[in-house]
Amino acid sequence: MMHRATVRPTENEAVLVVHGPDRPGLVAAISAILAGQDANIVALDQYSTDPDGGSFFQRTVLHLPDLQARRPALEAVLETELAGRLGLSWRLAARSVPKRVAILASTSDHCLLDLLWRQRRGEIPMTVPMVIANHSEMAEDVRQLGIPFFHVPSAGPDKSAAEAEILRLLKGNVDLVVLARYMQILSGAFIEAVGVPVINIHHSFLPAFIGAGPYRKAKERGVKLIGATAHYVTEELDEGPIIEQDVVRVTHADTAADLQRRGADVERAVLSRAVAWHCDDRVIRNGRETIVL
Amino acid sequence: MMHRATVRPTENEAVLVVHGPDRPGLVAAISAILAGQDANIVALDQYSTDPDGGSFFQRTVLHLPDLQARRPALEAVLETELAGRLGLSWRLAARSVPKRVAILASTSDHCLLDLLWRQRRGEIPMTVPMVIANHSEMAEDVRQLGIPFFHVPSAGPDKSAAEAEILRLLKGNVDLVVLARYMQILSGAFIEAVGVPVINIHHSFLPAFIGAGPYRKAKERGVKLIGATAHYVTEELDEGPIIEQDVVRVTHADTAADLQRRGADVERAVLSRAVAWHCDDRVIRNGRETIVL
Amino acid sequence: MMHRATVRPTENEAVLVVHGPDRPGLVAAISAILAGQDANIVALDQYSTDPDGGSFFQRTVLHLPDLQARRPALEAVLETELAGRLGLSWRLAARSVPKRVAILASTSDHCLLDLLWRQRRGEIPMTVPMVIANHSEMAEDVRQLGIPFFHVPSAGPDKSAAEAEILRLLKGNVDLVVLARYMQILSGAFIEAVGVPVINIHHSFLPAFIGAGPYRKAKERGVKLIGATAHYVTEELDEGPIIEQDVVRVTHADTAADLQRRGADVERAVLSRAVAWHCDDRVIRNGRETIVL
Amino acid sequence: MMHRATVRPTENEAVLVVHGPDRPGLVAAISAILAGQDANIVALDQYSTDPDGGSFFQRTVLHLPDLQARRPALEAVLETELAGRLGLSWRLAARSVPKRVAILASTSDHCLLDLLWRQRRGEIPMTVPMVIANHSEMAEDVRQLGIPFFHVPSAGPDKSAAEAEILRLLKGNVDLVVLARYMQILSGAFIEAVGVPVINIHHSFLPAFIGAGPYRKAKERGVKLIGATAHYVTEELDEGPIIEQDVVRVTHADTAADLQRRGADVERAVLSRAVAWHCDDRVIRNGRETIVL
Repeated sequence: MMHRATVRPTENEAVLVVHGPDRPGLVAAISAILAGQDANIVALDQYSTDPDGGSFFQRTVLHLPDLQARRPALEAVLETELAGRLGLSWRLAARSVPKRVAILASTSDHCLLDLLWRQRRGEIPMTVPMVIANHSEMAEDVRQLGIPFFHVPSAGPDKSAAEAEILRLLKGNVDLVVLARYMQILSGAFIEAVGVPVINIHHSFLPAFIGAGPYRKAKERGVKLIGATAHYVTEELDEGPIIEQDVVRVTHADTAADLQRRGADVERAVLSRAVAWHCDDRVIRNGRETIVL
Repeated sequence: MMHRATVRPTENEAVLVVHGPDRPGLVAAISAILAGQDANIVALDQYSTDPDGGSFFQRTVLHLPDLQARRPALEAVLETELAGRLGLSWRLAARSVPKRVAILASTSDHCLLDLLWRQRRGEIPMTVPMVIANHSEMAEDVRQLGIPFFHVPSAGPDKSAAEAEILRLLKGNVDLVVLARYMQILSGAFIEAVGVPVINIHHSFLPAFIGAGPYRKAKERGVKLIGATAHYVTEELDEGPIIEQDVVRVTHADTAADLQRRGADVERAVLSRAVAWHCDDRVIRNGRETIVL
Repeated sequence: MMHRATVRPTENEAVLVVHGPDRPGLVAAISAILAGQDANIVALDQYSTDPDGGSFFQRTVLHLPDLQARRPALEAVLETELAGRLGLSWRLAARSVPKRVAILASTSDHCLLDLLWRQRRGEIPMTVPMVIANHSEMAEDVRQLGIPFFHVPSAGPDKSAAEAEILRLLKGNVDLVVLARYMQILSGAFIEAVGVPVINIHHSFLPAFIGAGPYRKAKERGVKLIGATAHYVTEELDEGPIIEQDVVRVTHADTAADLQRRGADVERAVLSRAVAWHCDDRVIRNGRETIVL
Repeated sequence: MMHRATVRPTENEAVLVVHGPDRPGLVAAISAILAGQDANIVALDQYSTDPDGGSFFQRTVLHLPDLQARRPALEAVLETELAGRLGLSWRLAARSVPKRVAILASTSDHCLLDLLWRQRRGEIPMTVPMVIANHSEMAEDVRQLGIPFFHVPSAGPDKSAAEAEILRLLKGNVDLVVLARYMQILSGAFIEAVGVPVINIHHSFLPAFIGAGPYRKAKERGVKLIGATAHYVTEELDEGPIIEQDVVRVTHADTAADLQRRGADVERAVLSRAVAWHCDDRVIRNGRETIVL
């Protein structure tokens, strides 16, 4: 389906993401600021929800000789001009620095292995400093790839001790948390404390089947498509901004177990795409939706 | 996506659909009955929900010389053997006789015209003896194709007079009713009285958005796929057995109006496939699901 | 699959398409030129084949109060600055002026009707001043929609008289010619003389099947997908820059005739998308490929 | 998209595949033979190229108590009745016995790892007794999964020594050979000597690009879809019967390297589906095409 080109980072490239209230002349203003700093625009994607009173989003890939040395000066200008003068939010990410991604998993391996394998192939601009799981089945597979594996059990109704331990492991070490079929509900307190975005994957159907046993319910209704949705986690469980979705076709001859296996295939594909786009700074959150540039 | 071959009916071909409680030897028993009547099996699709105590479904395309003359004798044997001895439901449809399909519409033309074009090209084994609409915008388009158009307004909360008039038009004249974006809710009494299957099309999302303004809600949530579901109408509105579903990809750059236009494309494709399969006797209802053979 | 938002033109919007050799600062330079003319950037898509020595492509939707009155002045500046100073090609199209599209057809109706129906629904920003066909079957369908139909037969090996008549009809009246299953090969002289882009649709397979009877050959080889390609016509027949492609799944149970019918569905969808993108000035030709922004 | 249900083998289930010249009454005859042996039909798929003088194909899943003990008697009856009396080819495979599959690889891991993961998850009814590669990069990954890895280099133009060694490793040990991006051309002598089916995967485009550097050529032409084809290997290289195909959408913004990576995703999906269907005895070769039941 649709997809974004994979990254070819170079030492002196950075991604500048800008968003805020739209007004005439923003593209020109940003371009002039960058030109004034000797930064060349390699690629630019821009989107406005409404030219009149809407929101403005822009992703710019720029090339600046001696980026590392000149970055502080560039950031100072961006803060003054974009935040101060134009009232826009901005962030700048050097493309040579991969995102540090922690993966939380349980017992199923399909999403976890697909992410690790794509990381190894260089398809996602990330490093994986740790995998945390509430079961230990995946320990060997993960460690064989040279990645630390931490087992944090989460038995019992009170998850606060487990969440505290996970927070301690993550704190300061990661830029993104990915729930790769981590079958625990994270508390609102955890989401707030973790301080980095959290991406989750869950099954999706047309129409939706809510509660326990969704594949069984989908089977009973005879659905012809099953799907998956990757989204940012907010305090409203499974209601955060959608990053990516996809579906796969099924028939009456598929059992509920078949639907679950087919669902696994689409889950791993959708989650890997969502993580890759996030790590390439292509996803901008805008309230309850995302802009994927 | 997946699809079923279009029909190439011949004078002496018929479709036999059988379903009921599974037991050992049903395929052999049915085959022997047909062989005993000189009927040759051209194609056979069979499915059991569970070999042990499940339900059995079989669609057989058979060829019988002098079908029209010998059909009464064949039907007598099928009734005795299938219904009487084996406790199975059955129906036999001559492939040379197209289904008579009434289309109910309102103001939007996409589903209606797609069905009429395909009928004209011979892609769906049906005739269209009438189009009934609660608005008159489509009258000329329909009549130009040589098809009778009846305008039955449905103003006011009491639809019983309109429904009675529609029933009078349909009675005895049609084998299937298709709701091609007919924007009225049909009463349970109508569904019961009409006496033929009714197929409906409606938009579908992952996740579902219920109530008014679904495209606006989908837009707010930033969905990446929108879809459509064709189903048989039961008294539980929009909850009948699903025949076919499909989706199309959208982005943040699509407005709610764009979503609606894209939705129209997928609606017409899904409805036309569902109607074609039904008219080719490929769809078997099984409680809340369908078996598409 | 992927798609582009449909147009919502306003009186004072225009699309500026620029391409040429890339160099640092082009986005900033173009933005500054537009800002200097009081034109606000509504949307901007930009692409470079290679930041170092590659080609630059930019599509900008701009809003300029009193566009019609101020357009000559804007064009003069664009010519001086873009063409003269920066060595770039450019074109400016007012969004309130739909493209004038002539459709050439033969006997099959699927592509022709889909285009005319979408034009009527306002989904493609075009008018259709004429349909020209080498057969007369479609005359009534076309004229009923209020569109002139011209029958230009093309019997015999020498097409020059027919081509001359078509050229005479088209000359000065159209901005685009669409071959909607026009089953005649146009001469190189015609392509050169017509002076506007020509878009064609043809079936495509994996792998390719060349020459007569492609559906029969695809059937013999047992292909599982059949597709269609929309492309600009060049003197190398069926080798021009590709605008859009898509496929549909088939099985061993489909006859060669089924493949052809399924192919018709994908042909009409692909051609309509290609024409809509062209008419919205989203397609830029770049040698043997296209950039779709 | 389309897919076949994954297997749930039971001790006493077998798959009977029958094909040969069609004639009236074959389904009934086969059903009667099975009923006479106390075998119950669990599922039956049947297809005829042409009821009059065409070819007949049937896949039957049957359940026979004490299958292992009664299999010789069943096979004797099948040989007498199907082969002797009706002139049909047949094969019987117990579903409790997975296919033994050797995988041949080179340096790329995507197809190899996807097959091994799915085998480990029980998604493909196969065992993998060995992986053979002409490079050694994948040795550790393979052996970690407990699978023997044999390195058989293939330097130089004369492959006969390497092929002889591979044949010695395979002989008697495998039921299927899968070329998972094995970048060597196997000789006709090897294909003949190996004595089991060989499945290959290769990239596919619309239109086709022949010879070296296909992704570069596809990029130059600006294709919008890239795909993959899984097929049985015959002496006509890349021309054997197609089992499965699929495509993925790309844009002008993808580099030739991106196309190759996207191609890898579709290659692994298509190859895994083809191998799963083959191992579940769903694929019947019919000259230059396959019937997938």
